[in-house]
Amino acid sequence: MSKKYVYFFGGGKADGKAEMKKLLGGKGANLAEMTNLGIPVPPGYTISTEVCNYYQKHHSYPEGLEEELIENLNRLEKISGKKLGDVQNPLLVSVRSGAAISMPGMMDTVLNLGLNDETVKGLVKKTGNQRFSYDAYRRFVQMFGNVVLGIEHSKFEQILEKKKEVKGVKFDTELDADDLKELVEEYKALVKEDKGIDFPSEPHEQLEKGYEAVFNSWNNERARTYRKLHNIPDDLGTAVNVQMMVFGNMGDDSGTGVAFTRNPSTGEKRFYGEYLLNAQGEDVVAGIRTPEHINKLKEKMPAIYQQLEQIYQKLESHYRDMQDMEFTIEKGELFVLQTRTAKRTAQSAVKVAVDMVGEGLISKEEAVMRVQPKQIDQLLHPMIDPQAKIEVIARGLPASPGAAVGKVVFAAKDAQERGKREKVILVRHETSPEDIGGMAAAQGILTARGGMTSHAAVVARGMGKCCIAGCESIVLNEENKSFSVADLQVKEGDYISLNGSTGEVILGKVDLIEPTLSGDFATLMSWADELRKLKVRTNADTPRDAQKALDFGAEGIGLCRTEHMFFAKERISIVREMILAKDKEARLSALQRLLPMQKEDFKGIFKVMQGLPVTIRLLDPPLHEFLPQGKEQIEETAADMGIAARELEEKIQSLREINPMLGHRGCRLGIIYPEITEMQARAIFEAAAELTREGMSITPEIMVPLVSDLAEFKSQKEIIMEVAEKVIEEQKVKLNYLIGTMIEVPRAALTAQEIAREAEFFSFGTNDLTQMTFGFSRDDAGKFLPAYIERGILKQDPFVVIDQEGVGQLVKLGLQRGRSTRHDLKIGICGEHGGEPSSVEFCHRVGLDYVSCSPFRVPIARLAAAQAAIKESSE
Amino acid sequence: MSKKYVYFFGGGKADGKAEMKKLLGGKGANLAEMTNLGIPVPPGYTISTEVCNYYQKHHSYPEGLEEELIENLNRLEKISGKKLGDVQNPLLVSVRSGAAISMPGMMDTVLNLGLNDETVKGLVKKTGNQRFSYDAYRRFVQMFGNVVLGIEHSKFEQILEKKKEVKGVKFDTELDADDLKELVEEYKALVKEDKGIDFPSEPHEQLEKGYEAVFNSWNNERARTYRKLHNIPDDLGTAVNVQMMVFGNMGDDSGTGVAFTRNPSTGEKRFYGEYLLNAQGEDVVAGIRTPEHINKLKEKMPAIYQQLEQIYQKLESHYRDMQDMEFTIEKGELFVLQTRTAKRTAQSAVKVAVDMVGEGLISKEEAVMRVQPKQIDQLLHPMIDPQAKIEVIARGLPASPGAAVGKVVFAAKDAQERGKREKVILVRHETSPEDIGGMAAAQGILTARGGMTSHAAVVARGMGKCCIAGCESIVLNEENKSFSVADLQVKEGDYISLNGSTGEVILGKVDLIEPTLSGDFATLMSWADELRKLKVRTNADTPRDAQKALDFGAEGIGLCRTEHMFFAKERISIVREMILAKDKEARLSALQRLLPMQKEDFKGIFKVMQGLPVTIRLLDPPLHEFLPQGKEQIEETAADMGIAARELEEKIQSLREINPMLGHRGCRLGIIYPEITEMQARAIFEAAAELTREGMSITPEIMVPLVSDLAEFKSQKEIIMEVAEKVIEEQKVKLNYLIGTMIEVPRAALTAQEIAREAEFFSFGTNDLTQMTFGFSRDDAGKFLPAYIERGILKQDPFVVIDQEGVGQLVKLGLQRGRSTRHDLKIGICGEHGGEPSSVEFCHRVGLDYVSCSPFRVPIARLAAAQAAIKESSE
Repeated sequence: MSKKYVYFFGGGKADGKAEMKKLLGGKGANLAEMTNLGIPVPPGYTISTEVCNYYQKHHSYPEGLEEELIENLNRLEKISGKKLGDVQNPLLVSVRSGAAISMPGMMDTVLNLGLNDETVKGLVKKTGNQRFSYDAYRRFVQMFGNVVLGIEHSKFEQILEKKKEVKGVKFDTELDADDLKELVEEYKALVKEDKGIDFPSEPHEQLEKGYEAVFNSWNNERARTYRKLHNIPDDLGTAVNVQMMVFGNMGDDSGTGVAFTRNPSTGEKRFYGEYLLNAQGEDVVAGIRTPEHINKLKEKMPAIYQQLEQIYQKLESHYRDMQDMEFTIEKGELFVLQTRTAKRTAQSAVKVAVDMVGEGLISKEEAVMRVQPKQIDQLLHPMIDPQAKIEVIARGLPASPGAAVGKVVFAAKDAQERGKREKVILVRHETSPEDIGGMAAAQGILTARGGMTSHAAVVARGMGKCCIAGCESIVLNEENKSFSVADLQVKEGDYISLNGSTGEVILGKVDLIEPTLSGDFATLMSWADELRKLKVRTNADTPRDAQKALDFGAEGIGLCRTEHMFFAKERISIVREMILAKDKEARLSALQRLLPMQKEDFKGIFKVMQGLPVTIRLLDPPLHEFLPQGKEQIEETAADMGIAARELEEKIQSLREINPMLGHRGCRLGIIYPEITEMQARAIFEAAAELTREGMSITPEIMVPLVSDLAEFKSQKEIIMEVAEKVIEEQKVKLNYLIGTMIEVPRAALTAQEIAREAEFFSFGTNDLTQMTFGFSRDDAGKFLPAYIERGILKQDPFVVIDQEGVGQLVKLGLQRGRSTRHDLKIGICGEHGGEPSSVEFCHRVGLDYVSCSPFRVPIARLAAAQAAIKESSE
Repeated sequence: MSKKYVYFFGGGKADGKAEMKKLLGGKGANLAEMTNLGIPVPPGYTISTEVCNYYQKHHSYPEGLEEELIENLNRLEKISGKKLGDVQNPLLVSVRSGAAISMPGMMDTVLNLGLNDETVKGLVKKTGNQRFSYDAYRRFVQMFGNVVLGIEHSKFEQILEKKKEVKGVKFDTELDADDLKELVEEYKALVKEDKGIDFPSEPHEQLEKGYEAVFNSWNNERARTYRKLHNIPDDLGTAVNVQMMVFGNMGDDSGTGVAFTRNPSTGEKRFYGEYLLNAQGEDVVAGIRTPEHINKLKEKMPAIYQQLEQIYQKLESHYRDMQDMEFTIEKGELFVLQTRTAKRTAQSAVKVAVDMVGEGLISKEEAVMRVQPKQIDQLLHPMIDPQAKIEVIARGLPASPGAAVGKVVFAAKDAQERGKREKVILVRHETSPEDIGGMAAAQGILTARGGMTSHAAVVARGMGKCCIAGCESIVLNEENKSFSVADLQVKEGDYISLNGSTGEVILGKVDLIEPTLSGDFATLMSWADELRKLKVRTNADTPRDAQKALDFGAEGIGLCRTEHMFFAKERISIVREMILAKDKEARLSALQRLLPMQKEDFKGIFKVMQGLPVTIRLLDPPLHEFLPQGKEQIEETAADMGIAARELEEKIQSLREINPMLGHRGCRLGIIYPEITEMQARAIFEAAAELTREGMSITPEIMVPLVSDLAEFKSQKEIIMEVAEKVIEEQKVKLNYLIGTMIEVPRAALTAQEIAREAEFFSFGTNDLTQMTFGFSRDDAGKFLPAYIERGILKQDPFVVIDQEGVGQLVKLGLQRGRSTRHDLKIGICGEHGGEPSSVEFCHRVGLDYVSCSPFRVPIARLAAAQAAIKESSE
């Protein structure tokens, strides 16, 4: 028996089925599946992808194909009761591509195939509609001429335009049957002139050429580029679907529509959609006529409506997911042209998933897989009313999701002051730790520089506040308190709105929609928690953030940055005193005054976390970040401190660094100034001791930052342990604690087997690790990274999605080497990647114990972790 | 037969020999060897290191040892004709440690052991010198009390000081025999008081305790620390050497001296040294009396001199190297106490090595191994006259060797102006590319910031100019044109001197010695070239530097930095025009004007290099480095360019980066501005084409910097190849060329197998690779790196000596992965490590093809490469 190449569908039976996607392409498999379900699909046949591959290799068709094609066409003619080329009752078909993986718009399609000067007359006779028939004909000639014969689309358009001009009309629809008939002739003349051939009028020849055109389109340039970009193998091939044409524009007993099996916005379980009578699919889309709600169809065509209802129920229970279907009614007969999984909002996705578990339609695992983790953001943040008309004036990086509306201010101080009375948006070149108060007071933050992990981005995400970073097209003039984009100037006090999920900067005040969390959301997340293996912690520096993260399901703190506590108003001057101290004694005195404050900070956080693990990172940023900037501030600070401005200026100068990212920071601070480490360790242990005596159980995890060599870590560990022993003795309590390190410098990953000899846990700081592995400064990458991504040099921003190829190697290596020394080493990640779904999956697969992310990303990480576990166990 | 633990030497025969270093320690093995050579060594015996190890483990001695010790002591008494504890003719011995690896001053020694109240009288009788005898006695009590009994040295010193005070004298030597006798008693009383025991007067007991003290000293804290620091295993153990005391201070027929078998300063083959009659070794060192030249001894003691001459010839021919020997004459009898390989100057090292090959004493390989590569620097640069009295006012990093004297200036402009008339030293916070003219005009450079690979350091080394960097103790006041160190102020025009080999900043004008290169040097280097496998290239940006490097033996250019050409006076304004261009057209116009200049640069370099490989790196630094800094300069430049200062200021502001090291530089420039790459490629190919037509054979190697991903490299390679094709067509010549990349970003090493798919060569940029692997900014590391090294957190500055553990892993990985894709990939290194001997050895071992370093380091690299090859083949 020869191989089977062509698969028929129609008359309630199909040769293929849904599982045969690879062979029949997505469309073909789906048409077969629907047919088998008894759904009225226009009949037809699918030529398999194997033929495409054969054709690409040999530029001819395999043996036996021709016979199969003839046989299938005969079958189609029989079932449809029409005949290709029949002058009385012509069969018209569509010829479409369809690969296993959808490549929308990349390959070619021909509609209305089978028309010629004779068969069009048959169509007129059958439909009684001359205009319709000739319109179909001229569309066919145009489409065939363009797609199959390769004549530029614009040449046809020119002829059409000229015709309308001559006739003095504006729209295509104003042309009458005779005009269209003339157009057909003129189009044919164009074919003759351009290609030197007569337009092929023999329908069987048309069909042959149609097959060929689809197969050739598999290798057109845009398809090849698309496959390269999306990693689709070249030898997948496309199928060809030949299907009987049906028309919704054959009169008032015809129509077309789109319907959803549930509400794609809310998830409500109710048939939902719209339709137009005497119309084609494109009319619904074009918006010239306003479609009717699907309910109306119940009145207009009760039988059809009932049939539709049965179909949608059948489809949903068969596909076990919400469907988005297209249908056409031709002279009172219903045809389903397509069904596919419906796109939906986050709210709808959650509700549908949870409902379907309740209905027994899907399992919890499936429900968890049905919601995209990224979508969850929509549920947690306000969003711009999709109905609102907006004027986008610039685009930056979508650094922190949500939306914000407010009056523009240009200084943190102004944000704090004005923010008390009204809503403000803080606009800066970039933010620095000093701006935190202003950022907290603002509704949203817009910066001209910086990337997805710039200070503004990280802090805003931590605050759950909308932020657009690296908006390079705005030009700030801080002196004038204004910014400009091209010719437009925005002054202090003007309203702007930000969409942090898209990066759009919008002029004026737009309406926002506030989020509400449903019970369904909680249900879904509880299933995710049952299924995931990876723990999810949060990055939080204050009791308030910690509480927020707990509410979102965090299981501990993976990164508590102690320096953020240093910026509070009453503290910064003591911190500055500490930094500017002339000797160790003066430094100790300042540290002594900071100690009780830090202790209270830690107590507050420990109390909120109620015994859950808390990882505290020792002081990390370079000291100059704590010093005032700008002449005015320096003078003010100097006056406060009772020293000469000049002296302060000199000290600031001496601390300034050329590349602070690679400068005197992290454990390098604690090594040069051990007294800082001592103070911080004491604050942690005293806090833990006091709460332990109150009956709490606390095991602080102390994290040494920026280690590149075992000896650095050891020197800090010794100091911390010494303090621990002292506090235990002083306070007469037993304290458990862990001392570990960030792995954020490539060398630390490379020498992890050494570092693990002393470190009790690792936390991958993938922000810095990405910076150093690529040599990209996250603050400066805005100058080239967007262009890199646009041009495909990098597929994704490595500060957003972990670079598995490079940075990921170091994570794997660090993990393997660390565990080779200490098999029970606790390993997590606390970079911004900890809240990004594909990165969370990576973390799950390489075997990390937990991810840690900003509070608002905790639900995303929980869901992503569950999906990773499900995916893995189903492999 | 029981194991042998004690090895006798004396009477012209020894149980041990030189090869038994591990068992007898260096000193014991050498004493045995000399004895066997018939050299008059004071007799004695060595207790092997095995005993030490046994003792450490069991805190007792192995069986049979006691008998051996008695036997050996008997033998010693017999040979010496003296007896331990004999009142008439007492044997006095020294007890010294001696491990296989020298640990100078780390372990204990006791001299004059065997003295007590009785035996001292015998000594008086034998020597007829009461003062000498009691001085020896009181020294013994002091030494034994301190070393063996553990009484603080200072307690003895206090008693001595008090005695001198009472006696009204200033020097120890002014105390007479009775004073010394009293001192002995007072010392003994101290022992009684401090330790509650009588001073052990029995000589055999003294000896036992002496052994024990030496064994215990193996594990004292400083010895343990020393071993840890120098990676000496703890189970090596020390031997104990017991040797008859001889005295050079027994009258005018006695004496002591030090001699070299050749001149350690010049290498001249002539017996060289000095001596003192009636003196102890320490008198020669102390410098109270001026020693006589060894020639004088020929007159004074002709027989002794003749004996010495025979001995030195025997020692040198036996040890096959220049020896440094210590001798003592006791009552007309010559004893050699020690011989060891002589320390020598670079000049001497070279001459001795070459001479000894001529004499047939050593092989060429040995000669090459005899000269330390680092020493060669001394031969190439002026040095400070070792006789000069100097006042060191500060110490920085020895960033570029040699010495310089000049008047202080604080601005590059001043250096250029004043430098025309007089010698100047340029003092800056740090230098930037704009300062190059001033650096060239100065004798030397001193910077307050920056590390061993800071801009100042790298450029100065390239120029072969003395530089001290990161001298953090000087406080610059550029406004006042002065700097201060503590209370001292140095003003513009004041003289200072720099020692770039030590990092010393010296007040005033010191004398320099100019270098001269001998024929011996050339001979030695030619042998090195025969033996080495690693090629040596140079980092050179100008024909002048290239010529210098060729003279020093460079075999090509491994790194030609094209940006250095951009700073020339007539070019910088065009470069700035290019940077500030409003659109591509304006940028192209500026580039068009730069093209012929760059072409001439490359032609100049190609001509000098005469067909040797030349690797040209495309533009690397961030563009803002080319823009003016400071208000004055900005105004000046703006005026020159005919734009508003404000406009220029804004542009500079917009280009400023927070971490320029990780910013918009390297291939990121060529990707955003492909026209820059085009211009540079065209300049290279046109230069090559024109010279090819003149008959030269040129294969330029074009190097794309800062690649982190294959796609970056590919995008640049495509541009370069396109230009190449155009030039080949235009100029109608055949051109060969290679396109490769720097591996200087960790990710490039990690993905080298990908990058090698397109790159035809790799060059490890270990400066940047070190920065990113450690997360150390070389410009800012001065704030912590010196402390790291001081405290042993890092053993060496990783910017000077390649970090084999971390950075080295990436080099190995990059190499293996690169060659796994392209087995004939040419791989070199062009970081500063290419001229550092241990790093060169690393490069040889991992299998690089070449190292590239600054011209003045080329000879060092050649020698180090030869040594690496010799070491490897002898393993």
